[in-house]
Amino acid sequence: MVDSMRVGIVGLGLIGGSIAAGLKAAEQYEIHAHDLDSSAMALGESLGIVDQIHPTLATLPSAVDVLMLATPVRTLPSILPHLAEFEGVLTDVGSVKQPIVDAVLSITPQLAERLVPGHPVAGSERHGVGAADANLFRYHKVILTPLDVTQSDAIERIQTIWTSLGAEVVEMSVAHHDDVLAQTSHLPHLLAYTLVDVLAGFGDEREVFEYAAGGFRDFSRIAASDPEMWRDIFLTNKEALLRLIETFSAALNQTSKLIEAEDAEALTERLTRAKAARDYFTSIQPKSPQN
Amino acid sequence: MVDSMRVGIVGLGLIGGSIAAGLKAAEQYEIHAHDLDSSAMALGESLGIVDQIHPTLATLPSAVDVLMLATPVRTLPSILPHLAEFEGVLTDVGSVKQPIVDAVLSITPQLAERLVPGHPVAGSERHGVGAADANLFRYHKVILTPLDVTQSDAIERIQTIWTSLGAEVVEMSVAHHDDVLAQTSHLPHLLAYTLVDVLAGFGDEREVFEYAAGGFRDFSRIAASDPEMWRDIFLTNKEALLRLIETFSAALNQTSKLIEAEDAEALTERLTRAKAARDYFTSIQPKSPQN
Repeated sequence: MVDSMRVGIVGLGLIGGSIAAGLKAAEQYEIHAHDLDSSAMALGESLGIVDQIHPTLATLPSAVDVLMLATPVRTLPSILPHLAEFEGVLTDVGSVKQPIVDAVLSITPQLAERLVPGHPVAGSERHGVGAADANLFRYHKVILTPLDVTQSDAIERIQTIWTSLGAEVVEMSVAHHDDVLAQTSHLPHLLAYTLVDVLAGFGDEREVFEYAAGGFRDFSRIAASDPEMWRDIFLTNKEALLRLIETFSAALNQTSKLIEAEDAEALTERLTRAKAARDYFTSIQPKSPQN
Repeated sequence: MVDSMRVGIVGLGLIGGSIAAGLKAAEQYEIHAHDLDSSAMALGESLGIVDQIHPTLATLPSAVDVLMLATPVRTLPSILPHLAEFEGVLTDVGSVKQPIVDAVLSITPQLAERLVPGHPVAGSERHGVGAADANLFRYHKVILTPLDVTQSDAIERIQTIWTSLGAEVVEMSVAHHDDVLAQTSHLPHLLAYTLVDVLAGFGDEREVFEYAAGGFRDFSRIAASDPEMWRDIFLTNKEALLRLIETFSAALNQTSKLIEAEDAEALTERLTRAKAARDYFTSIQPKSPQN
């Protein structure tokens, strides 16, 4: 571990900006940043969370020890070619892990041994570097999915960064990550989007929203996320998601049949099982203001 | 309108208790209450939100001007026979409105002209009179579904009560209420229960819950509600709910097909439509701490 690590952040939005803010607060990091939007970089500099901005990607790789990609997954093919000479550790923050692995192996395979794909399981409805929050990752899990060939000192370096940000670091395989996240995040978002879309399609949209009780309010909050980001997540985690949709549809169909048959006993059993799962979930949550 | 209205509450749980607390705070009401659980009544009395408890239902009807039923819908057949001699206005707080209408028309048809079915669109994960909150209904809508034969002074009396509690009163037909609530509340709850149940059924339950991101957390919060209450809601609003499940399943199947075909454009359009609906929803929300 170096005394002062030089970290380059590509993409200075909410996530990239919050990483910058948290690492500056930790006082052991020198923060470099590149964003296609020069006003985002200027704002990052004026907020004091970026030490040096890089108007082009060309100068960034040679200036830092670690590069963190915090841009949408669809930008990887345009970013990676600039990293051919990069000698440090590469990581990212994407919600699906297979795409970064595939992109690196195909575009810059020489980086595979220093690739540590990462996913901070945290989010916010807010956007942009102006909403950067040094505590965004505190108490949250960050999942790293290193490859078999990834060097252990590369993994340690990324662990150090996330620990500095107050996150709890765990490791799992790429495939396992993408399966688990399809269950806990991608399918719920897909259901929320679908429900809001279905309800908005009914005759008097205003009325549907006016009488929205707790149930729908929580759903629609989920559906407030960035459509393009979620489209990319759904498409890049397609296989796991499609399997899950099938499982969910079958379960919904079963519940529907229980209601149709007015099978109160079986219905109660099903609802009680779900409540028990939720109660268990609540019991294992860390004590943090965000839960 | 009378100077001091005598209100009888049957069922002193969170909703009944919060009505009692709110009306006592409004200072123009004399609160009577009956509950099968004598400790709930004792607690209500010690909290100062009930003026007189009725250990049996027999003495309540003749002591009050308005009776509010705040018990589960399945208790109606055992409660209504005690109201044969009741001369005041009858209302309830159920989430589905057809059952109270059917029960009154079949058991105590003489009350139909003084029946004002009601539904406060508010809720909480908490339970019991101990969680009673005088402000639970403030800024929330209360939907009244009077019958064609309901007398206008009966409607006015119930409007007065809810206005005293800070709620906004609206009127609609029984059938329309049950349709709209199936959309905004019953279907979302059914989806949440189903998702939590499906995920809990996967191999490592602990893991699924540990990595739960925003999406799943919001869903599982919904599924924390009382299973027996929701079973009753699903069964009593069966027709509207089954129609909606079918519509939702078809939409989910369409989205699934878009993902399978990797139709990025159509998928973006669908997600953007949902986000626009959510944004509209947010814009019409009243400014209250609960939204």
